[in-house]
Amino acid sequence: MLANIRIVLVQTYHPGNIGASARAMKTMGLNDLVLVNPRCFPDAEAARLAAGAEDVIDAARVVDSLELAVADCVQVVGASARLRSLPLPHYDEPEQMAHDLVGHAMADPVALVFGRERFGLTNDEIRLCSHQVSIPANPDYGILNLAQAVQVLAYEVYKTWRQRPHSDYDNPRPAEERQPTREQLGHFHAHLGRVMHTSGFLTQPHARTEEQLHALFARAQPSRKELSLLRGLLSSLEKSVSGD
Amino acid sequence: MLANIRIVLVQTYHPGNIGASARAMKTMGLNDLVLVNPRCFPDAEAARLAAGAEDVIDAARVVDSLELAVADCVQVVGASARLRSLPLPHYDEPEQMAHDLVGHAMADPVALVFGRERFGLTNDEIRLCSHQVSIPANPDYGILNLAQAVQVLAYEVYKTWRQRPHSDYDNPRPAEERQPTREQLGHFHAHLGRVMHTSGFLTQPHARTEEQLHALFARAQPSRKELSLLRGLLSSLEKSVSGD
Repeated sequence: MLANIRIVLVQTYHPGNIGASARAMKTMGLNDLVLVNPRCFPDAEAARLAAGAEDVIDAARVVDSLELAVADCVQVVGASARLRSLPLPHYDEPEQMAHDLVGHAMADPVALVFGRERFGLTNDEIRLCSHQVSIPANPDYGILNLAQAVQVLAYEVYKTWRQRPHSDYDNPRPAEERQPTREQLGHFHAHLGRVMHTSGFLTQPHARTEEQLHALFARAQPSRKELSLLRGLLSSLEKSVSGD
Repeated sequence: MLANIRIVLVQTYHPGNIGASARAMKTMGLNDLVLVNPRCFPDAEAARLAAGAEDVIDAARVVDSLELAVADCVQVVGASARLRSLPLPHYDEPEQMAHDLVGHAMADPVALVFGRERFGLTNDEIRLCSHQVSIPANPDYGILNLAQAVQVLAYEVYKTWRQRPHSDYDNPRPAEERQPTREQLGHFHAHLGRVMHTSGFLTQPHARTEEQLHALFARAQPSRKELSLLRGLLSSLEKSVSGD
């Protein structure tokens, strides 16, 4: 189950932070590391700070977009400072995030995403997430070092995982009750967007409205079955709207 | 209250770890740092890794025994790997430790003690503690870097502190995020039902489908603002579907 929990580091500047993050992951039983456009990797400093976690570093995959890193995931949580520029569902308590993440990871891949040391994730990257999480911190100085943020969230994940009753492991949910992948959800949002335009509700591109709806459905966490119900409704609307 | 919580680092080898620990402390609202016989302090590398927490470093006190560092404390918790060579009371859950520590710190100084990078605390030093705590970790690789152990325990302390009544940490919800009344939600569901029928998606009353959608939107907990966005979309669909 922990094998389904991926750590994604976006455009990390200091290779040492990649190494220290790998070590933090391994102490908490995590080993799936994906790097999006790291400035410098592989690197001796990364290996040095990984200490006993070179296996995590060696197995890390490098990709060139966050989209590729999380396409197969059913939940994607972006770690961020406490800004709410986007209306994504936001966990103020890492514990609650860990609870949900570990639950989904029983059946499907999930990801925790960490941005650049200096300025975190861009808005476009945050849009690829289903949720955001903040680590409660000193309001006057709340910026954790990257590897330390990885440590804290990985620790919460491990704590939740280890406290789960054993019986839960044996009862994976049926596929239709599982969460859709980010890709399936992307198709749904595209469909919804088409219907909004065809019906004349949106007469021009209007990112803000679409974002609000994305956030709403992210909170609803539709199952695959519910998503196909919604797709059916959209198809039906599309047909009758297109003016037969 | 947080001012009563002291971090004690015993004979730290790498000055960078002192800096990174100071930063970790400050992110969690702690600033009382005591160093027992550090190998090398003050030091440029310590200052560099402290990032914005130089004030913690500058105010750190250096003493030459753990006894001096904790003499005025009412609780002294030694962080250790999971050995129980000594029969001290042992917290397996940092959360429980944080609860007790913060409780004592309301009235008196308390301390969290971290040993050397390589071999932790000696038995004589552990005898100066009133309790031990371990961080739950991967049984195959459970050794956190010093500053990361400080980060995790400081985080648990801050989390407990902020959940106490009267903590000055607040997180108010903007008014526009308020939940709609049951009545407003009822109007929305009725509207959605009409559109499903008008569009031909539902050709007869179909309680099960409507129930599923109710459940979906109940989970989403739309705000009043989001609900009015959805109502707008439904109106637009209704108009274009009815065949003008």
